Amino acid sequence: MPALNLHDDRLFPVDAATRSIARRLYEEVATLPIISPHGHTDPAWFADDEPFGNATELLLKPDHYLFRMLYSQGIPLEHLGIGNPEADPREAWRMLASHYHLFRGTPSRLWFDWVLSQVFELKQRLTAETSDFAYDTINEALAQPGFRPRALFDRYRIEVLTTTESPLDTLEHHRTIAGSDWSGRVLTAYRPDPVVDPEFEGFQHNLDRLSELTGHDCRKWEGYLSAHRKRRAFFAAHGATSSDHGHPTPRTVDLSINEAEALFARVAGGQASGADAELFRAQMLTEMARMSLDDGLVMQIHPGSFRNHNTPLFSRFGRDKGADIPMQTEYVRALQPLLARYGNERDLTIILFTLDETAYSRELAPLAGHYPALRLGPAWWFHDSPEGMRRYREQVTETAGFYNTVGFNDDTRAFLSIPARHDVARRVDCAFLAKLVAQHRLEEDEAAELAVDLAYNLPKKAYKL
Amino acid sequence: MPALNLHDDRLFPVDAATRSIARRLYEEVATLPIISPHGHTDPAWFADDEPFGNATELLLKPDHYLFRMLYSQGIPLEHLGIGNPEADPREAWRMLASHYHLFRGTPSRLWFDWVLSQVFELKQRLTAETSDFAYDTINEALAQPGFRPRALFDRYRIEVLTTTESPLDTLEHHRTIAGSDWSGRVLTAYRPDPVVDPEFEGFQHNLDRLSELTGHDCRKWEGYLSAHRKRRAFFAAHGATSSDHGHPTPRTVDLSINEAEALFARVAGGQASGADAELFRAQMLTEMARMSLDDGLVMQIHPGSFRNHNTPLFSRFGRDKGADIPMQTEYVRALQPLLARYGNERDLTIILFTLDETAYSRELAPLAGHYPALRLGPAWWFHDSPEGMRRYREQVTETAGFYNTVGFNDDTRAFLSIPARHDVARRVDCAFLAKLVAQHRLEEDEAAELAVDLAYNLPKKAYKL
Amino acid sequence: MPALNLHDDRLFPVDAATRSIARRLYEEVATLPIISPHGHTDPAWFADDEPFGNATELLLKPDHYLFRMLYSQGIPLEHLGIGNPEADPREAWRMLASHYHLFRGTPSRLWFDWVLSQVFELKQRLTAETSDFAYDTINEALAQPGFRPRALFDRYRIEVLTTTESPLDTLEHHRTIAGSDWSGRVLTAYRPDPVVDPEFEGFQHNLDRLSELTGHDCRKWEGYLSAHRKRRAFFAAHGATSSDHGHPTPRTVDLSINEAEALFARVAGGQASGADAELFRAQMLTEMARMSLDDGLVMQIHPGSFRNHNTPLFSRFGRDKGADIPMQTEYVRALQPLLARYGNERDLTIILFTLDETAYSRELAPLAGHYPALRLGPAWWFHDSPEGMRRYREQVTETAGFYNTVGFNDDTRAFLSIPARHDVARRVDCAFLAKLVAQHRLEEDEAAELAVDLAYNLPKKAYKL
Repeated sequence: MPALNLHDDRLFPVDAATRSIARRLYEEVATLPIISPHGHTDPAWFADDEPFGNATELLLKPDHYLFRMLYSQGIPLEHLGIGNPEADPREAWRMLASHYHLFRGTPSRLWFDWVLSQVFELKQRLTAETSDFAYDTINEALAQPGFRPRALFDRYRIEVLTTTESPLDTLEHHRTIAGSDWSGRVLTAYRPDPVVDPEFEGFQHNLDRLSELTGHDCRKWEGYLSAHRKRRAFFAAHGATSSDHGHPTPRTVDLSINEAEALFARVAGGQASGADAELFRAQMLTEMARMSLDDGLVMQIHPGSFRNHNTPLFSRFGRDKGADIPMQTEYVRALQPLLARYGNERDLTIILFTLDETAYSRELAPLAGHYPALRLGPAWWFHDSPEGMRRYREQVTETAGFYNTVGFNDDTRAFLSIPARHDVARRVDCAFLAKLVAQHRLEEDEAAELAVDLAYNLPKKAYKL
Repeated sequence: MPALNLHDDRLFPVDAATRSIARRLYEEVATLPIISPHGHTDPAWFADDEPFGNATELLLKPDHYLFRMLYSQGIPLEHLGIGNPEADPREAWRMLASHYHLFRGTPSRLWFDWVLSQVFELKQRLTAETSDFAYDTINEALAQPGFRPRALFDRYRIEVLTTTESPLDTLEHHRTIAGSDWSGRVLTAYRPDPVVDPEFEGFQHNLDRLSELTGHDCRKWEGYLSAHRKRRAFFAAHGATSSDHGHPTPRTVDLSINEAEALFARVAGGQASGADAELFRAQMLTEMARMSLDDGLVMQIHPGSFRNHNTPLFSRFGRDKGADIPMQTEYVRALQPLLARYGNERDLTIILFTLDETAYSRELAPLAGHYPALRLGPAWWFHDSPEGMRRYREQVTETAGFYNTVGFNDDTRAFLSIPARHDVARRVDCAFLAKLVAQHRLEEDEAAELAVDLAYNLPKKAYKL
Repeated sequence: MPALNLHDDRLFPVDAATRSIARRLYEEVATLPIISPHGHTDPAWFADDEPFGNATELLLKPDHYLFRMLYSQGIPLEHLGIGNPEADPREAWRMLASHYHLFRGTPSRLWFDWVLSQVFELKQRLTAETSDFAYDTINEALAQPGFRPRALFDRYRIEVLTTTESPLDTLEHHRTIAGSDWSGRVLTAYRPDPVVDPEFEGFQHNLDRLSELTGHDCRKWEGYLSAHRKRRAFFAAHGATSSDHGHPTPRTVDLSINEAEALFARVAGGQASGADAELFRAQMLTEMARMSLDDGLVMQIHPGSFRNHNTPLFSRFGRDKGADIPMQTEYVRALQPLLARYGNERDLTIILFTLDETAYSRELAPLAGHYPALRLGPAWWFHDSPEGMRRYREQVTETAGFYNTVGFNDDTRAFLSIPARHDVARRVDCAFLAKLVAQHRLEEDEAAELAVDLAYNLPKKAYKL
């Protein structure tokens, strides 16, 4: 049976001299604490600290990178336990193991091998033959105290972990964590899409709940804005340092108060057209920037995904089933109104993300290389991968430099992929820096300083952590 | 005079250790049979098995990659014998030879050198000085039996070769081949653009011919669909396993029967607007997918070319003169109606191509990495080149994996470029895999398996060959 | 204090064997004269030959690459002396020096280090600590005769330098230079945007001035065209071999005379809508091509920049403050009318540029690889960088070849960056060629010839210099 190898030099350049440089740089960052300022893990894990159920529950079911690939090759989601509580988790795991070759060349393979090898000390490649042994080994480990959520959090030196919640969330898990004797920092981030996007499922109902929660009349423009301010303050009191905005496009506008009131009347009255909805989202980015200037929350904009593209699958299984597909995204005209208003503010930080890599060198690096308020988020989602991160550095650095970027985001729902992903990011950044050094475009002392900045200092500073 | 060198290590990585891995991988695939599931060679060559006329007829005139480059540098097409039967083929060849430096750094140079060296055993670089010797050497060879079409087909281990025909084609050459004592597999593919695209030259006349051929009334929607079904069955009976669709865009719609009938009435009545034509092509992709579910033909979509961009040249010389230019192509919204209807079908295969490389990582890999019905075609046309194929693998693999791709297409009209192109593709894929191995992102045993899958197994399976 | 190293092998490939090839190729071009056919230096420098004032005046204030990056990290432009004549230039220089780490990984760092090391023989990296020493050293040098503009021009073997002027310019500095005893060739280029773009500041006033200058009535279509012809002839008489067009888009049209007259009546009457302005610019590209066929000026098209994106900054500081941001740019449909009319002309040269790298392989290389009138300009502006130039060669060469490109443009306002930039371009091209040789895609004798062609022969030929 083939061995599971996790080579010390993985992801480093192939040229021997350059590889040596990369090794030296990586030594500077390999054991630095993890700053995870953006992600989607479940805060209940750390509040309750209950053991994870089994290998399938922990590693397969929350990871849409895994089940989308299996689905693309004809494996029904039900066989994997998605939307099917009757499915045998051992059989689901076998399905993954017997199709593990599908992940060759993908980052999922790198992350998963890291987890199998580093967390569970498995020595053999995952295959149909080794499936049951791996499954049992993992399950046995999970029953031990050292594999509970808080212990794993500490073991992998996570200095801070941010989750993402709706304004309607009570943040009870974050309160539980804060009130516990555990010192782990699990923060929240303000993600207002459910009460900002008129096309979000249940938007009208969400406005009612926001009114109840805050005591402000969210059917009136001023009340609605006050409710946001109140919830933002509540989130900040629970550790939030950032907001997050997942709009279809990065469009912004800067309406007069009268225009905004009239638009909101249509939105809150349930009469918003598609164009109204887009206009309202656009205005709300400007409103959120204005609030950030007051309360200091760092603003993240994550645009460009066509959500729930597979409509029959969405009807059966709901959101987040691997059918969100990137679209072309235009930033230059879209962000101009917001930037004309607030782009020159030195006390505002707006972090831009993209799923459209063509924007890196054409739009995002030139914008971030000019506006004081802008920073560039790391390679995101499909591009959180060795080639994706390399392209990001190659296409962004020459125009925006390193210091207009903000380090790495893992952005994951799969808890154990956090240390795996940060390790990949650190290795890829060291490989990139090593090439610059080997080509005499950068001195090695500068590269060593940069490696630490990219892995640790820049995200702490950008996210005010 | 400079030698013509075809180095054994061409196209492999420059790093010595990585190059060794590439060599070992290439050994696994160098002599595998060629699967050529998509192309535009002339089936009459293999039906009649007549000798090729001369070097210019065989190598220059069918190859618009060659004459477009010469034309771009001011050489009139007439001097090359295009649209000018009076042109001296030896002089045309001299024109190519004396401008051969224009092809430095292009895939045409790689392919052409391969043909000169491997097929005709020439030892000197093509230049003005060596032009006549090369011309005479090639012509002498072509007069020998071993250089007739069938002999060359066999010599280069072509296991199957697919040509592309209109529904109006009688497939007589394919019948002749099938009825001969030669065992070569030359299949057809169903390319219905002339009877599906209302803007195709002679569309109305083509509808009449389709009616005559099938006995169905192609001025009525139901008769028109029945005619397609009948011709598809006829093509399948002559070996076709696929259809091919060269639309300007990949737009699809899923109209009701009443809407489709009304639209077709305008189309068949010659009153279709530009918007109607686009809508009709969009509906026909959905209709073709529906028929594929019945008859099993694999569907290929080749969108995004602005055909005959050089209108004065088109007026003088006609189609396919090197003036088809790629355009930006949007897939996510365009394919959504078709995918919502049939994208989850496990018995349907739709192979997507692009001339817009930005779609690889943004749209195509995410779509193919999710929908069971989708596969990605290889780097196409201008991108069938070492850098183009490298970018394809780098941008596609991390999201779609290798197993949602379908191996290589040569897509050529230039017969002898087929083995040359497959050799380039195999070398570039081995180079890509070798890098993954050298960076410890993949084990060498897996890379060896993948090399064979990419060169042989995947195209056979995807195209049902 | 860290040394300032300018390694002999900088920018060459990391692999030792490939690096040796690059070194040999670079030896062929390292000391070739500089052809600078497009840029924005001030001709008054060479007319008056006055000493440059100080390090800040010479190196920081004309270089928006530098001050935009500093601005993006919160440094007010006033502190750098921009729009603030009171600023202490030594303090501005200190601001640059103490933030010099921001330029790690950028081309500005490469260029600036070259100037510090090669021109001013500084031995230490620029930092807060070395700031004053560098400032004083540079200022002392600038007071010497060998550092006056003409002496530097000669010292760096500039064979020809082209500046860019409006049709309203008197070209007095060029006349002064031509009438002097200095042999340096400083040419002009015809940049008609101020009298062609109805949305340019002062357009109506500019039409009046053009009438005065030429004696033609520029409120009438025929008079306006005659005025252009007259000024083009005047520019050609002062050495111009090219025109330059900085439109928002590359759109072209080919209107009838009646349509053009009616359009111009609206434009000259001040009643042009936004659509009229775009249509007029589109028609003027076709008119300029027509004039080029008569007078032989090479046409350069530089589209795709959103000028003055930061409106509050523009209000305070004016144009060219680092806030011009690239946009998506479509060429295939946009250029079709012009190319249908003049694209097949062998006596016309149109050089296309882009800020949208996605157009390289998709649109520009296929167009330039077909139309006799088209050539591709080099990687431009944000892409005039090691990674940008590499991507350009990788994405353009396979389809357009090398001989449809025109060598390097420095396009700079920062005089001493000219030799620095040409050196980077030569190194990057040699690195690219070396890789092709090492991979046996090109023979070394051909690469050596190409290195000289790219550095010297192609720009001379394309720009008729």
